Amino acid sequence: MPKNWYNILPDLPEPLPPPLDESGKSFDVLKTVLPSEVLRLEFSNERYVKIPEEVIERYLQIGRPTPLIRTRRLEEKLGNRVKIFMKMESHTYTGSHKINSALAHVYFAKKDGTDFVTTETGAGQWGSAVSLASALFELKAHVFMVRASFFAKPYRKYLMQMYGADVHPSPSDLTEFGRKLLKENPEHSGSLGIAISEAVEYAMKNSGKYVVGSVVNSDIMFKTIAGLEARKQMEIAGEDPDFIIGVVGGGSNYAALAYPFMEEELRSGKRKRRYIAAGSAEVPKMTKGVYQYDYPDTGKVLPKLKMYSIGSDFIPPPVYAGGLRYHGVAPTLSLLMSKGIVESRDYTQEESFKWAKLFSQTEGWIPAPETSHALPILKEIADEAKSKNTTYTVLVSFSGHGLLDLANYAEIMGFK
Amino acid sequence: MPKNWYNILPDLPEPLPPPLDESGKSFDVLKTVLPSEVLRLEFSNERYVKIPEEVIERYLQIGRPTPLIRTRRLEEKLGNRVKIFMKMESHTYTGSHKINSALAHVYFAKKDGTDFVTTETGAGQWGSAVSLASALFELKAHVFMVRASFFAKPYRKYLMQMYGADVHPSPSDLTEFGRKLLKENPEHSGSLGIAISEAVEYAMKNSGKYVVGSVVNSDIMFKTIAGLEARKQMEIAGEDPDFIIGVVGGGSNYAALAYPFMEEELRSGKRKRRYIAAGSAEVPKMTKGVYQYDYPDTGKVLPKLKMYSIGSDFIPPPVYAGGLRYHGVAPTLSLLMSKGIVESRDYTQEESFKWAKLFSQTEGWIPAPETSHALPILKEIADEAKSKNTTYTVLVSFSGHGLLDLANYAEIMGFK
Repeated sequence: MPKNWYNILPDLPEPLPPPLDESGKSFDVLKTVLPSEVLRLEFSNERYVKIPEEVIERYLQIGRPTPLIRTRRLEEKLGNRVKIFMKMESHTYTGSHKINSALAHVYFAKKDGTDFVTTETGAGQWGSAVSLASALFELKAHVFMVRASFFAKPYRKYLMQMYGADVHPSPSDLTEFGRKLLKENPEHSGSLGIAISEAVEYAMKNSGKYVVGSVVNSDIMFKTIAGLEARKQMEIAGEDPDFIIGVVGGGSNYAALAYPFMEEELRSGKRKRRYIAAGSAEVPKMTKGVYQYDYPDTGKVLPKLKMYSIGSDFIPPPVYAGGLRYHGVAPTLSLLMSKGIVESRDYTQEESFKWAKLFSQTEGWIPAPETSHALPILKEIADEAKSKNTTYTVLVSFSGHGLLDLANYAEIMGFK
Repeated sequence: MPKNWYNILPDLPEPLPPPLDESGKSFDVLKTVLPSEVLRLEFSNERYVKIPEEVIERYLQIGRPTPLIRTRRLEEKLGNRVKIFMKMESHTYTGSHKINSALAHVYFAKKDGTDFVTTETGAGQWGSAVSLASALFELKAHVFMVRASFFAKPYRKYLMQMYGADVHPSPSDLTEFGRKLLKENPEHSGSLGIAISEAVEYAMKNSGKYVVGSVVNSDIMFKTIAGLEARKQMEIAGEDPDFIIGVVGGGSNYAALAYPFMEEELRSGKRKRRYIAAGSAEVPKMTKGVYQYDYPDTGKVLPKLKMYSIGSDFIPPPVYAGGLRYHGVAPTLSLLMSKGIVESRDYTQEESFKWAKLFSQTEGWIPAPETSHALPILKEIADEAKSKNTTYTVLVSFSGHGLLDLANYAEIMGFK
């Protein structure tokens, strides 16, 4: 178990464009609602940050270190041209990589003496993680869940409730912003950007702390526990990946696995591997978005960030990979993409779900709809290996399982 | 990873009463539908049976060996009077201990050259396991699922379908027995006993093989992989349990963990530990059943077995612990209970679910409704330890997770 998180800021090829406070108020908001240590780490240049003992204890409790598995039957299906290693973040207790940072955020919130934390969630992966982290640190959690998901994804809502959290459909009548939207449209289906604005407002007005589950530097740093473990595990397996792949919602999943491997390349200036991230073709922020300053939330309460974005007002279509519906890409990952260090791909839900079914029957484990978007990259790499008459080693971030998304798969696949 | 399964038959305190073929036809049925090696092992007196390489490979693929965890926060809640070790069978890919024998049954069926296997399932744990085993050995699976669960438990049905199985609501119109019942009552909600009869009939008439997921000796033998791993893991941890506890549906879950520990006691004749099994107070086969010859299936197609039973015609109430609704107890476990070597308890759904919620918030992992029935025993043991001013070490079979049962928890707990 690694003892430190990795912070990529000092190793970036150029300084990260800072957040932009156009309203003159958004920095004050952050200072009020973020746990103080999270805010400090957000701008820290320490390369390695010590993981608090209490967080390590909980990491061990929720299933860390997660296994690194080799998927030999899938390799066969792809013609034995790729050795595939998967870092199974689906094997944590909440079923995804999200718990890796939730434990840190909630721990730092508790250290500030707060009574409760707030957060937003779409499909419910992040909300479940914050709910469990809050149960383990004995804090109350208020989760603002995108209204459409609140009703369409009851299982993750129930999971949060089993952990003792209060789950509110967003827009809600608990905030001014929510009430305004509900007045305009009582059936408003909500969005992640709206839920962020509500969670921030509720924390600010009720002296709680807000915990953020992707995009920002501190969150990615906390999640590097996965990549740091994988680096050790690959070393023990005597393997060095040629490709590192994964999916991007806000970017923290992919960055968490990739950055610890990228460290040596950034520091030496010698490129060695290919990094490919995939998103949803229905929300093509990486392949069709623009690298620009944009708001991370719909309510425009937070500072602008320089990132690939298809616009904070973009209304995502109702695809089932809820975690991929976010409009922007983490600033550090956006910078690396703009420099050509990280490549991007988009895949449709239809194509990704076919891979999910193949994977389930071949490897026996159900990928989250989000995670399934990484699988088509494997085919591309296998094809390239074949055309060059070589073999490649690929490391995949298996970001979550789809056990609680089975109804969505059933709908698309026509199960009766 | 153990290389052999353990067979308790040669170590029982007296010979196991044999199955009884009152109709004169039921043995022929078994000879036709069971995989030949399963039938041979059912009556074998070999103490250790070599696990085929192909089965070991799949064990490794689906998450074996499963972890043994210590639940320190739960220990605190119980006043630090018990050291609790849990064998996490919930951590396999189908979420329960059922895959341990499914892989063996399906492997032996395939060796007989069949095209498909049939089986029954209640809540869907066993059906999921057979579906995955069939996907991994590339055989078709026909699963007869209790009609009430087919509609009320769609997630496990979808899981089976993701694995490529055909799932039929039972009673179905695919068998004579099913058609007869549907004619009497087109809305028949079904039962496990009925589904067994249908699965056997369908295999018999269509040259398939039938795989049985509990009760019989061979099935328990295959599942001892869990107890054998736990025996090694406890040894590595330097601990020896004073109590071994778990829940009983048909008995294979509890027996699989307990028997490998019981071996030395049975062979030496020296009692050393206490063995306590829990069931559902709504289906009190162990505490209110009779030790007698009874049919294992409602259709009375199979030979009678000597076992604790509340009657093969018993209509179980609609409790959510589907796996505990079976009317009988495995013959070997029944014999050990009749000798006082294994004690039994009954707990209501209401009491068990309170423990499920406490466990979820304390340890962060959702127990299956079935598994939650083992948790009240821990309180009893902690109270006894306190009254004797001592501490005990307890080993628990954590038979499955409840992620796909969250809607049931939500209903009982009033989540909105």
